[in-house]
Amino acid sequence: MRNVAIVGAGMTKFGERWDKSFQELAIEAAKRALEDAGMDLKEIDALYIGNNAAGRLIGQEHVAGVVADSLGVTIPSTRIENACSSGSVALREAFYAIKSGIFNKVLVIGVEKMTDTPRSLTFEMLLTGHDSLWEGVFGFMPAAGYALLARAHMCKYGTKKEHLSMVAVKNHRNGAKNPYAHFQREITLERALGAPMIADPLNLFDCSPISDGAAAVILTAEEFARKYTDVPVYIIGSGQSSDSLTVHGKRDLTTIDSVVTSARMAYSMAGVEPKDIDVAEVHDCFTIAEIMVIEDLGFVEKGKGGKALEEGITEIGGKIPVNPSGGLKARGHPVGATGIAQSIEIFWQLRQEAEGRQVSNAEIGLSENHGGIGATGSVMIYSLSSNPRR
Amino acid sequence: MRNVAIVGAGMTKFGERWDKSFQELAIEAAKRALEDAGMDLKEIDALYIGNNAAGRLIGQEHVAGVVADSLGVTIPSTRIENACSSGSVALREAFYAIKSGIFNKVLVIGVEKMTDTPRSLTFEMLLTGHDSLWEGVFGFMPAAGYALLARAHMCKYGTKKEHLSMVAVKNHRNGAKNPYAHFQREITLERALGAPMIADPLNLFDCSPISDGAAAVILTAEEFARKYTDVPVYIIGSGQSSDSLTVHGKRDLTTIDSVVTSARMAYSMAGVEPKDIDVAEVHDCFTIAEIMVIEDLGFVEKGKGGKALEEGITEIGGKIPVNPSGGLKARGHPVGATGIAQSIEIFWQLRQEAEGRQVSNAEIGLSENHGGIGATGSVMIYSLSSNPRR
Repeated sequence: MRNVAIVGAGMTKFGERWDKSFQELAIEAAKRALEDAGMDLKEIDALYIGNNAAGRLIGQEHVAGVVADSLGVTIPSTRIENACSSGSVALREAFYAIKSGIFNKVLVIGVEKMTDTPRSLTFEMLLTGHDSLWEGVFGFMPAAGYALLARAHMCKYGTKKEHLSMVAVKNHRNGAKNPYAHFQREITLERALGAPMIADPLNLFDCSPISDGAAAVILTAEEFARKYTDVPVYIIGSGQSSDSLTVHGKRDLTTIDSVVTSARMAYSMAGVEPKDIDVAEVHDCFTIAEIMVIEDLGFVEKGKGGKALEEGITEIGGKIPVNPSGGLKARGHPVGATGIAQSIEIFWQLRQEAEGRQVSNAEIGLSENHGGIGATGSVMIYSLSSNPRR
Repeated sequence: MRNVAIVGAGMTKFGERWDKSFQELAIEAAKRALEDAGMDLKEIDALYIGNNAAGRLIGQEHVAGVVADSLGVTIPSTRIENACSSGSVALREAFYAIKSGIFNKVLVIGVEKMTDTPRSLTFEMLLTGHDSLWEGVFGFMPAAGYALLARAHMCKYGTKKEHLSMVAVKNHRNGAKNPYAHFQREITLERALGAPMIADPLNLFDCSPISDGAAAVILTAEEFARKYTDVPVYIIGSGQSSDSLTVHGKRDLTTIDSVVTSARMAYSMAGVEPKDIDVAEVHDCFTIAEIMVIEDLGFVEKGKGGKALEEGITEIGGKIPVNPSGGLKARGHPVGATGIAQSIEIFWQLRQEAEGRQVSNAEIGLSENHGGIGATGSVMIYSLSSNPRR
């Protein structure tokens, strides 16, 4: 099968975007990606749309149709919904559509409009990513779920509250250098530690925000890539896996099994190992998630995720920089857009375009995106070379 | 690329299924499909789930995760949402995943749980398939949209109220012979014509019902197909296209452009023409839709859809039998399941397993599924031979 490259990327500023509708956000990101690739919309063969909850939030399902209609195209448009991993799963469908030769050029758009809606709907929407029969019906929120995982990780591995806050401090420091980030201000460790409690041990600064935003990338086959850019970024590995939606259904509260499995698939397809990864964007919906995931991806030994923060190895300039964009914590988390925004950060990092937050000499990158507490895991690996094993 | 076959199919009875949850419906359909193929769940490489509105209806997004969790598998599971065409678009993603060699065996499940929910949510959900900014916000319901199309078709082509009712009579007659149908009773033309008005000219018997149900098929590559069945049914063509969500955005109120385009793609891929189709399942969400679609698929000349009903050519035994299952009108319309149920009816018809409603000597079949008033169109063509052109 053919090699697949990202040849253009664009995103909106993430944040409280009361100035833009769902449709306008999607169009803005799409136009920027097309401009970036120097590609005409007419060249695009198909759209894949990542979106989690427009049905609940803005009374709009059929968002694949809405986006195609807003762009004025009649090409196939397909909407993927896999909770917080909707963006990366949409990207994966598009990746395979190009890889297998079904389409030559695909535009993938992740979009979510979360703030310009009654707050009660946002609460309802947050419940829909959990199991409605076992958890949602009882008002079990994402923060409650991750608080349980955090407490288990603390008990089993001695992870401390300070480690959680260090994730927030690092990601806010990175986000302060990202003009697309929802939050662009640094915070101190003291401020992070002293924030109001949300779900013990997670406080306000352990939680990613409710954001609006859209992100778009253009994929094409290697044979067409150089027509659009001198520096294509290849997707060389992809893995996706499922696990229980419920906390009680998890094999181990301190591991996200679907991320472990997806990572294994992606590393195997790419022919690389954790030590080969130069930069990573991971799903830090809550600070504990980043700590668990850097273990599950094999960047550090299981249980040493907290210590990694102390050692600074996940800082820009560290051994394995994690979330140079600011992550979900500071860049924001417009759910359907998140997985695509992660890919865009890696695209920019590998192309040396991440001004102010650039990781030096990054050639291979990874993005990790999961839904709920890991019912869907999705990992992708990117490289400047279509075959870095050579 | 490889040829793709359906080797197993199963569905639940459609109707008001207060006895079964969303999860139970999905599992029941999946188990029947696996039993039909004599396949173990462990052999399945991936799940594709077609679902429109579980987020609105039962407070559950991330339904790909829910279904994987309920089945107890950790394989990739991807949810497609394209309004009323969610099922067929999920099938198309799975079709391409097999065709391109990404996976060898895929289980596709369409599922919707619509009745066991507050009626107000059902009304809200019906609005979400329209454009929320231009139509949904004003309470513009699907029946209202199709009523406008019906009136336009009547004005332009002389289609009569009786023609609409004839669709209902035919499809109820067929549904009466389908043990899976929501409605299994015949109706007379007088009764259909005299039913209470919903949105002039559409009355109660011109509208498909609100149903619960699930439907599942198993796809594999030609090289594995005979291991599971002596009579695989090949998917030989697929087309998908987009169009405006809004009535005011349509080029012509009497044509569903996305169906015309999708049909052209599917016929071209399959190398067949409308006259080669022996049996079709089409998206008769409202009776006028069947009349328009049999024209748009090329079975009859544009404007002659009403007359086709008079002539009986779409009856079982007619020149081109349409909706032998009873269609959405009588089999019911659990939205995400509908596209898969159409495929299953064609699977059974080509295998001569549609007891009591069998079309004689059917070798090539077609299914047509569209979302909203045609913002997504999706057409698939099936054959007993992997290459009927030979």
